[in-house]
Amino acid sequence: MSLFDEIFEQPARLSHLLDQQRSVIEKIAREIRDRNVDFVFLAARGTSDNAGRYANYVWGALNQLPLALATPSLFTYYNQPPVLKNARVVGVSQSGQSPDIVSVLEAGKRQGNLTLAITNSPDSPLARAADFVIDIMAGPELAVAATKTYTAELMAIAMLSAALAKSDLMWGQLGQVAGWMDETLQQSRAIEQVVQRYRYMPQCVVLGRGYNYATAFEWALKLKELTYTVAEPYSSADFEQGPVAMISDGFPVLAVAANGSVLDSLVTSLEHLKKNLMAELVVISNNQAARSLAQAAFTIPDGMPEWLSPLVSIVPAQLFAYHLTVARGYDANTPRTIRKVTETR
Amino acid sequence: MSLFDEIFEQPARLSHLLDQQRSVIEKIAREIRDRNVDFVFLAARGTSDNAGRYANYVWGALNQLPLALATPSLFTYYNQPPVLKNARVVGVSQSGQSPDIVSVLEAGKRQGNLTLAITNSPDSPLARAADFVIDIMAGPELAVAATKTYTAELMAIAMLSAALAKSDLMWGQLGQVAGWMDETLQQSRAIEQVVQRYRYMPQCVVLGRGYNYATAFEWALKLKELTYTVAEPYSSADFEQGPVAMISDGFPVLAVAANGSVLDSLVTSLEHLKKNLMAELVVISNNQAARSLAQAAFTIPDGMPEWLSPLVSIVPAQLFAYHLTVARGYDANTPRTIRKVTETR
Repeated sequence: MSLFDEIFEQPARLSHLLDQQRSVIEKIAREIRDRNVDFVFLAARGTSDNAGRYANYVWGALNQLPLALATPSLFTYYNQPPVLKNARVVGVSQSGQSPDIVSVLEAGKRQGNLTLAITNSPDSPLARAADFVIDIMAGPELAVAATKTYTAELMAIAMLSAALAKSDLMWGQLGQVAGWMDETLQQSRAIEQVVQRYRYMPQCVVLGRGYNYATAFEWALKLKELTYTVAEPYSSADFEQGPVAMISDGFPVLAVAANGSVLDSLVTSLEHLKKNLMAELVVISNNQAARSLAQAAFTIPDGMPEWLSPLVSIVPAQLFAYHLTVARGYDANTPRTIRKVTETR
Repeated sequence: MSLFDEIFEQPARLSHLLDQQRSVIEKIAREIRDRNVDFVFLAARGTSDNAGRYANYVWGALNQLPLALATPSLFTYYNQPPVLKNARVVGVSQSGQSPDIVSVLEAGKRQGNLTLAITNSPDSPLARAADFVIDIMAGPELAVAATKTYTAELMAIAMLSAALAKSDLMWGQLGQVAGWMDETLQQSRAIEQVVQRYRYMPQCVVLGRGYNYATAFEWALKLKELTYTVAEPYSSADFEQGPVAMISDGFPVLAVAANGSVLDSLVTSLEHLKKNLMAELVVISNNQAARSLAQAAFTIPDGMPEWLSPLVSIVPAQLFAYHLTVARGYDANTPRTIRKVTETR
């Protein structure tokens, strides 16, 4: 089983997850909905932290829940961690093994908060520490770089949002994700050609905003892990405040620009980057105006709602990273110097 | 007034701030201490967002307050922003002008939360929107890249922590910061020599953890804004999960390693980077073992408590960025393509 296969497995895995876990998640939602919760406190690292960034927008915009991303070292290195009160404490981890993420859940539970694990390992220490467990059912992930567990984490987060909102509309949209993903995967051959142009790209920035802020982070992480490119993710709003000073002729800017509330703001940024700063643009978008600005553009289906676009817009990004890895002659399944399960304290 | 002067102005500005605002901040602490607060919700951008990262650790470890960094676009672009309840809503902004930061404070107040502005402009829209205002008293900052307003924001955050904790020990330590800074500024000439080695450095990563996670972000931001180097900040814990795959012979890794709870973990990372991955290390530290690993090392005073080290450890970082800017022939006062006050929606 290779990274490439795991990328293509995603639609089937997500269909299965939606099918198998909907009633479990609706039950969890019923039990937690009426508990007094002022905010979500979410602990995760790496790819799962990017899923946490998605949760920040989905649960914020669609369930009106403010979310704090935990800084686990406060729980493992400093004497008196934050006091959590009226919090819903969530740990997200593929393996469920990371001791620092488990620490956050244990502390949250000790302090009387409701705890939830989102994991691919329902027998893991993380799952055992939690009141509620969502099994993301992605199957064994053998490649070191996470792909299908990322989209399964996003799916689980989105399903919990729909369950909390009791929204038939949202559940209906969730049923379309696998099909949108299948359609998007068709571009693999085209992406394989396009990446040749970036064989010697030493560095880049990756922009996204709103729901797809998470996609920018995850695209950048795949580029770092697999292609060893220095790829720095940014909200387009933060980027313009200062880091844009780095950009000069030909500097590669990758962007995720899905139709929705923040699209206009992102397109304005891209126009400036192209016309005034002569940046090289690589754009993933279902908007023709956004794509037309780019030297390389990948499409995602029209008509997808913005809140689910991150589950699909990451697919061309994964394929871009995969094919660029192959073009550079690196090992996509086992990148140098990193391991699958980390044991961060 | 130039960037260089503003860097050197910092000890005097911080002494003045401590002197003038202590009683104001103690009064604010008395009024907010007994309000039921489950978490802090902090909105900021750019340099002020890095000050927010510092607040996350200081208020978390020393005042046991969990902190959420706001995603302002939820308040400006999406229909239904998070519902804030039992939150202390804090806006941090030098200019106090950013419409999106003001929006977060206004929403927080409308929903019945206590609001606090930390700003260099006590007449600004941000200050007008807040119940309480801490004036950071940094004086006019004319260089586009923020230096003295960053350390003044940190000082205000640290003072509020001491006031909430009613700790004479902490207030005593705050009184020593200006002296530690003065001592650290003495290295300017030495740093001017050392940066020659990095004249052609195209990219780097910047590591920090715990309290100095903020310092890593701010060092990286200065390098991007001033020297146009692609500089990516990381918690050393997150870095090892995947991005470390980028590192090969001679790849520059900058690190902030102050004595304290996370030092051992950081030194272990640096040893691995040096011995196994042949990274080039630039280290700011008051620990001899950490400095001895580096090709270039800058010192900060012994005996500083970890919680205040970010106010001092940023000084060699600012000087490094300034001198490297000059070595590259760029304009340190007015970097290309960015403006001082941004008007992000």
